[in-house]
This record gives sequence, structure tokens and C-alpha cells, in this order.
Amino acid sequence: MTLSGGPTTGPTVAEILDSHLHGSGSPSRTARVVLDAIEARGDDGIWLSTVPRDEVLAAAAELENRPGARDLPLYGVPFGVKDSIDVAGVPTTLSCPGYAYTPDATAPVVQRLLDAGALYIGKTNLDQFATGLNGTRTPYTMPRGVYGHEMISGGSSSGSALAVALGDVPFAVATDTAGSGRVPAALNGIIGYKPSRGLISTVGLVPACKSLDCITAMTATVDDMDRVMSVMMGRDDADPWSRDRGPGFDGSTITIGLPPVEELEFFGDDAMRDAHLAFRNRLKHLGLPGGVEIVDVSLAPFLAAGELLYSGPWVAERLVVFGDFLAAKPDEIHPVVRDILRSGEKYTAVHAFAALQRLRELKAEVGRIWLGTDVLVVPTIGRTFTVDEVLAQPIATNTMLGHYTHFGNLLDLTGIAVPQGVTSDGRPHSAMLLGAALTDDTVLHLAAALLDEPRDRSMSSSAARTPTTLPAS
Amino acid sequence: MTLSGGPTTGPTVAEILDSHLHGSGSPSRTARVVLDAIEARGDDGIWLSTVPRDEVLAAAAELENRPGARDLPLYGVPFGVKDSIDVAGVPTTLSCPGYAYTPDATAPVVQRLLDAGALYIGKTNLDQFATGLNGTRTPYTMPRGVYGHEMISGGSSSGSALAVALGDVPFAVATDTAGSGRVPAALNGIIGYKPSRGLISTVGLVPACKSLDCITAMTATVDDMDRVMSVMMGRDDADPWSRDRGPGFDGSTITIGLPPVEELEFFGDDAMRDAHLAFRNRLKHLGLPGGVEIVDVSLAPFLAAGELLYSGPWVAERLVVFGDFLAAKPDEIHPVVRDILRSGEKYTAVHAFAALQRLRELKAEVGRIWLGTDVLVVPTIGRTFTVDEVLAQPIATNTMLGHYTHFGNLLDLTGIAVPQGVTSDGRPHSAMLLGAALTDDTVLHLAAALLDEPRDRSMSSSAARTPTTLPAS
Repeated sequence: MTLSGGPTTGPTVAEILDSHLHGSGSPSRTARVVLDAIEARGDDGIWLSTVPRDEVLAAAAELENRPGARDLPLYGVPFGVKDSIDVAGVPTTLSCPGYAYTPDATAPVVQRLLDAGALYIGKTNLDQFATGLNGTRTPYTMPRGVYGHEMISGGSSSGSALAVALGDVPFAVATDTAGSGRVPAALNGIIGYKPSRGLISTVGLVPACKSLDCITAMTATVDDMDRVMSVMMGRDDADPWSRDRGPGFDGSTITIGLPPVEELEFFGDDAMRDAHLAFRNRLKHLGLPGGVEIVDVSLAPFLAAGELLYSGPWVAERLVVFGDFLAAKPDEIHPVVRDILRSGEKYTAVHAFAALQRLRELKAEVGRIWLGTDVLVVPTIGRTFTVDEVLAQPIATNTMLGHYTHFGNLLDLTGIAVPQGVTSDGRPHSAMLLGAALTDDTVLHLAAALLDEPRDRSMSSSAARTPTTLPAS
Repeated sequence: MTLSGGPTTGPTVAEILDSHLHGSGSPSRTARVVLDAIEARGDDGIWLSTVPRDEVLAAAAELENRPGARDLPLYGVPFGVKDSIDVAGVPTTLSCPGYAYTPDATAPVVQRLLDAGALYIGKTNLDQFATGLNGTRTPYTMPRGVYGHEMISGGSSSGSALAVALGDVPFAVATDTAGSGRVPAALNGIIGYKPSRGLISTVGLVPACKSLDCITAMTATVDDMDRVMSVMMGRDDADPWSRDRGPGFDGSTITIGLPPVEELEFFGDDAMRDAHLAFRNRLKHLGLPGGVEIVDVSLAPFLAAGELLYSGPWVAERLVVFGDFLAAKPDEIHPVVRDILRSGEKYTAVHAFAALQRLRELKAEVGRIWLGTDVLVVPTIGRTFTVDEVLAQPIATNTMLGHYTHFGNLLDLTGIAVPQGVTSDGRPHSAMLLGAALTDDTVLHLAAALLDEPRDRSMSSSAARTPTTLPAS
């Protein structure tokens, strides 16, 4: 296998803001650069739609001319949105043209970004109905990973990951139900952060599993993630899962849980195994003010919960939304996705309640682990796949991709995929940091340390700098 | 309708302890009085089994002779246990002889009582599989309410309510999934308290709906309830729903939410309506140090959750436990209970997830109500029923009985049914106080005020007086 590339991320949010405020840049100039880059590459399966050039430039000009707009936290910063999230007037396709509809309202999370001065560029590709972790399940052009054209992009937020990894935009809005916001980040060398469930309103997102869905973001730096999250997060009474952020990181020792090596699964990928074990050795030397402590944590209850998702009744939750469409227009659904959805029809309510009871047991077990552990560190993915491998075994490969991510939302965790270089043969290695619900700030702090980023802000202090009510729009 | 009677409760826990410690009483003497009373009445459907006289007396004598036993918080206090909860060596029947089995282990909640010096007397009748709120669904002798032989006892904890209401024991252990611990208390003029889910271990309880089940107690006074609850409550890692108690009542103003009169439903029972409205008028004059404030609270989201339980997929959760038995031995199940269980077979996992999503919306709505309300006050039951009425319409009458109780556990509330005299024609009126999860102490405090009981303890301070680890047994 010959590999090439890796991410070619562009300027960060901070750099773009600096250029707009203190340099030679402007929202209009930034917009032109973004659109030129997208146009120059042609249809590579990343963007499903982009805003017409004149409209983007009009929006940029409006920002430039609006009094006070320069003080907005994302003044003129371009971004993309996974095409399962509504933007008024733009078709939401979910990578299923037969399902597409054009919403009248913009999802609150996108509206918050617009209100913060960000510049909406377009919709990004995804595994159809956000069902998949590999990026191949789309009727549009199949996107490819940045580490080689034969590599999958990962999914389901394939386009959002690539839009950031290729430097089109410094951040993109994505989602994560079973790993969709972390796996494609891992495969393209960027950060994918899935906040604790409920910190970002999911109103305006077409649900995959409504009880598990999270809206997420992809960025190249933790600083960018902090900046966009302080805008994206916020209570929304219209989202029944909505909740407030947890406390800020207090600077004390971070206790890192590592699974015993024999519990780690790399599906035969020895180079990935070597990369991950080398990475683990670096953990104890991280430069954190309070230091780190390493403890053993068994993955058993986490994997048992993941198993419940993969071979249990949650697939039926997707039918709450897609059941009618599946019955009416099965031929318009990607064959692999269709088979998955149909597999949900066999589960009874008894199966669902039995699985929920089992999940409760596992949650209680995991809850006791968090009493002595701040952050669990595992590989984001145990191995990479080529497009051919995934097309040959679409279910088995997908299951392997979700080995470390499937359980995250079922167990109400926060998680972040952090790029950590490449394997000896040049494929991406990503570490995933997982914490209990609402410990996001601690997890982000550790992520920053892993990337050698200084981080003096906390999510809570960022919040204090953000208006608690949205500006009128 | 000519009515007679009402509860004839016996000495309280406090009185029994005082008699054992400072008076002429003793555990042996108390045990003899209890057994004599039960024996004298004969089989009236309250007790399904009692411990043989020589064994009870031996247990009492052992207590009397054990050094230090006199300091135990329930030294020689007799109690009964609903026959869905395990006591080692005693058949657990669930009012279904064909289902009965003899457990090796005693449920932790019962063991805690035994360890606190309480004297186990026997098992009490119930609506089969704890499925029912009326008391008629038993193959054993059908118990009757204390307000008249033609009156239902209420259920499913029929025997536990009656054992207290008739003065056999000062407290009995019961359960409450959809009202089973509150409705029979209401129909027999005693207190039925359903703590927040998870405060009492449900290990050793045969589940009805495992995700909703609570173990409860019946007593005649709030002081007795405080005493037994300080023993019954406690974390249990073997119960995945287990959690710690909330904060003690802080003495501040209690904000009481009352539904608009037009939202109250009495199913044509005008005397009950009059009794309840008169009771509501007394609320504002309650003698509480911090006073009370009355606010309007709509019942709509509560009733919508109850509707979800009654005509939704939760009945399928009962099949997680009873499905195999239903398939193997349908003829051994009470016909009404069998039909109810079978109705659970029609629900798919899609129904279950859709209902869980809807419940989440209602929970969020109710959560916002608690921001401005401490305690919601409603009737425990909107009307009473005779046995004949229930036998004639077993489902419709049961639904009416659960109108105010069905939603309690689905919405994760704490609730207490408090007797408040009788209607003009001599039937029992009971008020139900409901609060958000873990506000138990506030709700108990208001209950004590309604019964003119002084209450200087809080659950938290009681806890401080109770050993946090169980004495060796």
C-alpha cells in the first residue's frame, strides 16, 4: 500500500479572525478563497451543495458593512454543515435524493453560528441517513480519505471531516450517534469532538437515533474547537435532551484510565497497534500543571454496551423517523442502509426494554469507573480500511470501525478524537479521550495537552464571554 | 351505599419501641398480639403466609437475649412484606401459585429491616404480578377495603395496606410501579409513600416494569415512615437504579402547585370532588415555619405521560420477566392479568423508542414546572369503587384508579398518599403530594404538616443517626 497526503488544513479560526480584524483579510476575501478552492477541486464528494457565489459574497459584504459585526466571535469565519441538519431554503438530503426536503427554518445550532458572524458555505456529504461509519454509503460521489485515494473517508460525517482536513473551512458542523463525528476525524487527521449529549441543541437535525444523537464539530485545533463550541452550545427548551455544561477543568491531576493492552483490539493492524502503544507511553510525560496519573480500566462494560447497540434493538429507533419512507420507497434507499433499517423491524418492545435494562446495568458499572478515573484513553479506530475492503464487507468493516465509538452515547459519555501522527506505513493514528457526561472541559484540556496547545480558557469561562441570549437576528 | 369502618391502625413504631424499651411490652408480647389478631380474623385475603408462631416467638426471644439489640432502631417492631419481594426460605408467589418459587436469599431491603431489629411476620396479598390497582386480581381470598366490605382494597399492594390499616403491623413493605403503593393506601386511610426511584434497592423484587419499579412502605404516621425509611433506604451497587437521597428540607417556603379545578377528574364522584376542594382550601393555612405559596400547575404533561403508560408499550416491559411464563402456562394466570400481558405482545421496538422519545419531551416539560413548584398536590384517586364495579369493568375502573398515579415513576417523581378524612358519605379521601426526584424530604415535610404531625427530623438527619454500614448479621 502506498500512501500519500494527510490533512492540508487551512488557516485556523483564530488566524482568520486576526486576518479579518488586523490584517489584509476580509470576510469577502476569505469567502472567495473558500469558493475558489472548492470549485478548483471539482466534485470530489465533499460538498453536496454550496451557496451560490453571489449570495456568499453578499452575506460577507453585509457582515463587513454591519455596525458591530467585527466584534462577533466568528466574524466572517466560513463553515460547512452536514447535510442532515436544516438550513432554511436549502434542501436537506441526508444523502438520499428521494428523501430530500427543503426546510423553512434553520437549525438553532446553525443559527447561533450565523448570529456569531460565521459564514455558511454549504452542505457536506454523509453516509445516507447518518447510518454508517465509513463514507461509502452515498449515492453522490464517494469521498476519499486524505491519506490516500484508496482510503475510505470514514463517516457518517465524511464531508464535514474532509472540508476541514482539506482546508476549505476551519470548522464544520457534524453529528455523532455511534461514532459519526469521531471516526471520519480519525481517518483524516483532524479533531472530532462529540460533546456530552444535550449541550448542543439537536432541533433541526433529522434524527438517526433521537435518544442518542449529538451535534458535533470538526476542527484542526482545540482552540478552534473551544471558539466554535462556545457559540454552538446553549440550552434549548425545544430539545428535551438539552442540558447545561458541566464545570470547568479545575487544574488538578487528571487520572487517565488505560485498558490493559490485551483488551485492545486492532483487528490485525500491527502498525496501528505499535502507534497506539507508543502514544500511550507518552501520556505519563504530558506537560499538565497538575500532572497525570495512569490507572487500569477494563473496557468490558464499555464494549458490552457497544455490542448492545450493534446487535441490539437501537437500530429500530432509526425507523421512528425512516420507517414510513422505508415502507413507501425502499428502492430509493442505499442497499446497505436499507438492509440495516430492515433489520430493525424484527425487534419487539420486549427486546427494547430488556436491552434498556441491560444498558442501565452497564451504565451503573461505568458510573463506578468514573469515580476513580477522569478520562479513558483508547484508539479512536483500531484499524483503517480501503474503499475496496469496505465495499467487499460493508457490515463487518463498519462494525470494526465502531469498536471504540459505538458505546459513547449509549453510556452518555463525552468524547474527542485527537490526531496523533501516523503509523509506520503512513496511515493516521487517532487517540480518543472519553469522559463521563459533563466532564467535557477536562477532556478538552487533556486533548489540548496532547496537541501541545496551550489552553488557558475553559468552556465555562468561554461561556462567560459569550452572550447568554442570542443577538437579535 | 352504607359504609362503615375505616382504618383501625394499631400502635405506632414509636409506641411499640417505647413499650419494648420503657414499658411492659416486649418483642415476644408484641409478636403474640400480632399473630393472635391475624389468627382471630381468619383468612381475609390479607396475609398469604405468616411465619409459624414458634419461629416468630423464637426470633423475638433471640432479639430479647441478644446484647445490644435493644439499641436497634426497629427493635422488635413487626412488619409484613408484599409477596413479590423475596424472603429466604419463604415462597414468593406474586399471587400466582403456578409461578411461585422459594428464594435462597432475602431482598436487601428486608434484610436491612431484620438487621435493624424488625420482626418479619409474613407475606401480604397483591394483584397478581403486581399488575393492577384494585386488589381483585388474586386467586387467593379477595381482600376488602376497610371502609366497607363491598369496597375494593385497592392494589396491587392490597395486603400490605390492609395489614397496616387493620393494625396488624405498624408498617408493611410494598411496591409502586404505576400507583400500587399509593392507591391501596388511599382506599384504606393510611399513608403510602413511594420514594424517588432508586432510594431503596429493588434487588430481590420480582420486577413488574423493572425500569419503573419502586419499593415503598405503608404506615399510619409520617414519623413511622421516617423511622422505617431511614432503615430501608441505602445505596446498593447491585441495583443499577440505586442512588443517594437528596437534600433535607431547608425550612423555606413550600410552593404548592395546584391544578386548575377544571383539570381535576373525579369520574362523576361529586362527594370526592367536594372533599378534595375543601382540602385544597385548607392548604394555604398550613402551619409551616416558612409558610406555603400556592401556584397554578397544569396537569397536562403529567396526564400525557400517564396515558403513555396506560396505552403504550410499557406493558411489554412486564413480559421481560413474565413472557416465558405466559407462553408456557397461560392458564395459570388470572384472566384479566393474562389479557393485559398479552396486550404487550403487539408492541414493536419502534413503538418503544417512539414512546421513550415522547416521554423525554414530557419529562423536559415537567422539569420546567419544578423550577417554580416544590410540590404538586392532587387527589390520590378521583373516586372509589366497589368490588362489583371492578369485576364488571376490570380495565376501565383500573384506569380511573390510576389517573393520578400512572405517571409518577415514568416522570421520576417522588409521591406520598396522605389520608385526609372522608367524603360526606363516608368514603376515604386521600391527597397525593408529588415532587421532583430527590425532593423526598420536602414532600414528607408537607405530608407531616397535613397530618398535624410535628417533624423536626429530616431524612438526611435520620440517616446521620443510622449506621451507614449494616451491622453484621
